[in-house]
Amino acid sequence: MRGLWLEDRRLRLRQDLPVPVPGPGEALVRVKLAGICATDLELLQGYYPFAGIPGHEFVGEIAASPDQPDRCGERVVGEINLPCGHCTPCQAGRGNHCEGRRVLGIKGHDGAFAEYLVLPLSNLHAVPDNIPDEAAVFCEPLAAALRIQEQRPIRADAGVLVVGAGRLGQLIALSLAGGGHELQVVARHPRQRALLEAAGITWTGEDQVTSGAWDLVIEASGTPAGFELARRALRAAGTLVLKSTYARRVEIDLSRLVVDEITLIGSRCGPFATALERLRLDLDPRPLIDRRYSLSEAVMAFAEAARPGVLKILIACSERD
Amino acid sequence: MRGLWLEDRRLRLRQDLPVPVPGPGEALVRVKLAGICATDLELLQGYYPFAGIPGHEFVGEIAASPDQPDRCGERVVGEINLPCGHCTPCQAGRGNHCEGRRVLGIKGHDGAFAEYLVLPLSNLHAVPDNIPDEAAVFCEPLAAALRIQEQRPIRADAGVLVVGAGRLGQLIALSLAGGGHELQVVARHPRQRALLEAAGITWTGEDQVTSGAWDLVIEASGTPAGFELARRALRAAGTLVLKSTYARRVEIDLSRLVVDEITLIGSRCGPFATALERLRLDLDPRPLIDRRYSLSEAVMAFAEAARPGVLKILIACSERD
Repeated sequence: MRGLWLEDRRLRLRQDLPVPVPGPGEALVRVKLAGICATDLELLQGYYPFAGIPGHEFVGEIAASPDQPDRCGERVVGEINLPCGHCTPCQAGRGNHCEGRRVLGIKGHDGAFAEYLVLPLSNLHAVPDNIPDEAAVFCEPLAAALRIQEQRPIRADAGVLVVGAGRLGQLIALSLAGGGHELQVVARHPRQRALLEAAGITWTGEDQVTSGAWDLVIEASGTPAGFELARRALRAAGTLVLKSTYARRVEIDLSRLVVDEITLIGSRCGPFATALERLRLDLDPRPLIDRRYSLSEAVMAFAEAARPGVLKILIACSERD
Repeated sequence: MRGLWLEDRRLRLRQDLPVPVPGPGEALVRVKLAGICATDLELLQGYYPFAGIPGHEFVGEIAASPDQPDRCGERVVGEINLPCGHCTPCQAGRGNHCEGRRVLGIKGHDGAFAEYLVLPLSNLHAVPDNIPDEAAVFCEPLAAALRIQEQRPIRADAGVLVVGAGRLGQLIALSLAGGGHELQVVARHPRQRALLEAAGITWTGEDQVTSGAWDLVIEASGTPAGFELARRALRAAGTLVLKSTYARRVEIDLSRLVVDEITLIGSRCGPFATALERLRLDLDPRPLIDRRYSLSEAVMAFAEAARPGVLKILIACSERD
C-alpha cells in the first residue's frame, strides 16, 4: 500500500508498504482522512525516536474485522493508545498511562498517513451519520481538549483564559464556548483571531492580558513565554492546565506556586465518546481546515502545516475519498 | 519590651521596643513560646525584604482585648495572615491570598520573637487545656501540614511518599500517620529517622525510593534535588504536593507533566481548628523539640536552628514561662 514513511527525520512517500494484518481483537481500517498535528511535526524534528508511518488523527472505515465481521464497513475514529493490559496502571484502569503502551503513529505502532492502519476494535468508535469526515477527523484532538473538563469540572462563574490559538487552542476554545463562563483566548495571528470572532469567542493580544485575574488558565502554546504568560494571568489559588508539550525544560519559580497555592494539571488524551457527542450536536471544527492534500502530496502537506499560523492540514489517504 | 529585631540580614536583641497597641478588633498577646521555622532562617538570608520582629509560630495569652475584654487571659495560637478584607480575593473568601496581606513576622507586621505581639481577635484560636504550650506552639506548621488533606483528600488505598524529614516533613508524616494508607518518608539524618521510627512511620533513604510508584508525593525538602526525586517517585496521573519554598527557580520537564498527566499542587497555610483538634486528640509533636532557649539567647537559638538536621528550636519569650 501507499503510505508516508518517517525515518531519521526524513519523510517520504512509499508505494511498497505491506497492508497491515489485524491480530486477535483488531481491525483493519481503510483511512479516509488524516490530520497533521503538532506532535507529527515534532516527530519530524526528531523529538521522539519514531520510525514508521506517522499520523494519529483520522477517520476511516473498517475494512476487515475477523473477530467482529459485522463491524465491517463501519465508519470509525480511533483512540491512539494501545495499552499492554497487564502492568500496574493497566490493572488500575489507567490504560492511557500504560508503561509499555504503543501509540498510533507515535510509538511502536504504524499510524494513519497511509491507505490502511490496524487498531484494536476496542479503540474504534462508530461515527454518527450526521458528522462529515472533515469534522470526524478532529475527534482525537477535540477529545484531548475535552480532557480538561474531565480532569477539572469548570464552575459556571469561573473566568477561563486560553493561551494560544493554534490547532489545539482553537479546539479548546470551541469546546469551552457556550459553557456560560467567561472565556478569553490569547491569539496572535489574524486568521486565528478571525476564526475566534466567527465563533463568537473573545480574543486578546498577549500584552492585553489582565494579570492575576483568571481562575483557570489553559496553556496551549507549548512555549516558555506562553507558560510565563499563563502563570502571570492566573489568580492565587487558581488552576493552570498544561495541554501542550515543550521542546525544552522550562525554568519555573516553584516558590510562587507554593505561596500562591497554584494547581498545575498536565493534560493529554481525552474522551472520544464526548467528542463525538459534541461533533454530533453543536461543535463544528471545519473552519479550522486550511487545506486538504492527497496522500501523494503528503510531504508538501507537512511543509505547509509547519508554516506559522497554519491551522489544520488534512490528507486524504484513499483514492476514492 | 524586649524582642528580636531583624534588619539588613542581621538579628539582634533589643530592649527598647514599644509594646504594640491593639487597634479595633485586635488583641495584645503576651507571647509564651515561639518556634523557629525555615522561613525565619530564609528571612535572615535576605530572601524576603522584611525588617522588624520575626516569628510566626507561637502560643501566648491574651493580655488586652479592648473589643472583647472577656477573652483576656485566654491561651491562644494565631493565624498569621492579616488580609485587607476589601480586595477581590478577600471578597471571594480567599483572605489567605489577599493581594495586600500582611503576614505575622514575615511581611508588614511584627512577629512573635518578642514579649508581646498584636493580632486581630479573629485570627486567635483558644487552646484547649490539655494541650501543653510545647505542643500548641506547633499549631501553625501543623495546620500547614494538614492543608494537604484539605486541598486533596487522600484515598484509603493511596500510597503516600513524603520527601524530606525536617521540621515540616516530620509534621506532615505525623499528620498522615494512622490514616490507613501506605506511608513512607525519605529521611537523611539519623535523628530524623529515629523520630519517624519512634512514631511507627516507615522511612527510606534517597537511593531506595521506588520510581513511578507513588500515588501522592509530598515535597517538603525545598531543594531542586528533592523535587526531582519526588517527580521520579510519582506514578503517572499522580499528584505532587509542594509544601516548601525554593531558594531559586527550578528547571522542570513540563512535557513529562503533560504526558504523564501529573497534578502539581502548591500548598501553604492550613486550618488551625483541625490542627488544634489533632493536638488535643492524637498528635504529639514534642519529640521534634531539640532545645528551648530564653529570649535573651535568641540570636544563639537562630544559629542552632540553622545547623543541618536540627528540628525544632523554641524560644521562651516571657520571663515567667
